[in-house]
Amino acid sequence: MATPEGQARNKEVFRTAAQLMVRQGYGGTSISDISKAVGMTKAGLYHHIRSKQDMLFQILQHALDGLERVVIEPAKRLEDPEERLRETIRLNVRGIIDHGPEFTLLFPERHHLDPAQQEVVATRIQNYRTFVRDALREMANQGKLRDLDIYIAQRHLLQTIVGIARWYTEGSVDDENHLVQQTVDYHMSAILKR
Amino acid sequence: MATPEGQARNKEVFRTAAQLMVRQGYGGTSISDISKAVGMTKAGLYHHIRSKQDMLFQILQHALDGLERVVIEPAKRLEDPEERLRETIRLNVRGIIDHGPEFTLLFPERHHLDPAQQEVVATRIQNYRTFVRDALREMANQGKLRDLDIYIAQRHLLQTIVGIARWYTEGSVDDENHLVQQTVDYHMSAILKR
Repeated sequence: MATPEGQARNKEVFRTAAQLMVRQGYGGTSISDISKAVGMTKAGLYHHIRSKQDMLFQILQHALDGLERVVIEPAKRLEDPEERLRETIRLNVRGIIDHGPEFTLLFPERHHLDPAQQEVVATRIQNYRTFVRDALREMANQGKLRDLDIYIAQRHLLQTIVGIARWYTEGSVDDENHLVQQTVDYHMSAILKR
Repeated sequence: MATPEGQARNKEVFRTAAQLMVRQGYGGTSISDISKAVGMTKAGLYHHIRSKQDMLFQILQHALDGLERVVIEPAKRLEDPEERLRETIRLNVRGIIDHGPEFTLLFPERHHLDPAQQEVVATRIQNYRTFVRDALREMANQGKLRDLDIYIAQRHLLQTIVGIARWYTEGSVDDENHLVQQTVDYHMSAILKR
């Protein structure tokens, strides 16, 4: 089992590698580039990963572990669907700010994975979409939502959160809590019945 | 001046090249790949473009010309800011569906352009953001908006529209007009005062 220091080191390696792959594209990034960026020899890096493709897979799995631990696990304890949805948005935006947008930005590169790996990643993403959709459905059943298409609302909601990884940089908004709160309010206003 | 046939041919070349660059990444796409995909010889392709970078620049300029012609020009004729914003959202979503998501999806590759080209593209994108922000500001001045951060609202709004290029495929929603209408309603509900 990895020590806490080992886990923190892994996270930094993944984060640096993700930044590089986002900046240069997966195709434009070599294992040499990655080993230089993370300050390891190629041999040292191959001790942890089997290939560049394996690196991408491990990074995305790490990001999805984080999503489950930091967003889904705490939010799913909330029984009330409106509270659960608010908390999901809040924690997801907070997670992107705190753990780095590069993990979110790397997901479009997942088509470089082999089919079995793509399937694993796609299933985990789909589980998150279902988690959000279920909260919306429960709210609809409680009569809380205006007349809307839940599938499209779920897409819009998650695209906006993912979008924050694209445009947010430190200092682009007054403060992070403000961004989190504005994002929760935006979506609750968009969906709740007047 | 290009004939209408020449313009249609250009659009198809740009579209095919854009699809390829989106699928393989800019770094993973060669001029040979592009010439094969568009059914031209490399020499024939070099008659139109100077380099792969020039190809990317011309495609993005073409996409921005389309945005101006299809979205901004018609919408800006509307004096009422709420009508103008509704029409902007409507035309932008419709434009992505009709003219192909690959143009939208290619914009993240713009960091491969040279600095002067990047500046041209960034300025045109910024002009569109300002156009949307101005409609929001005018609506705020008319007392129509709930208490919200206009900068963040503008970002959320445009990320959602760009996001449609990522998830929408034919058949993923009942019909296109439904998607357009749901998207307009989502944002108007998000921003209008109750």
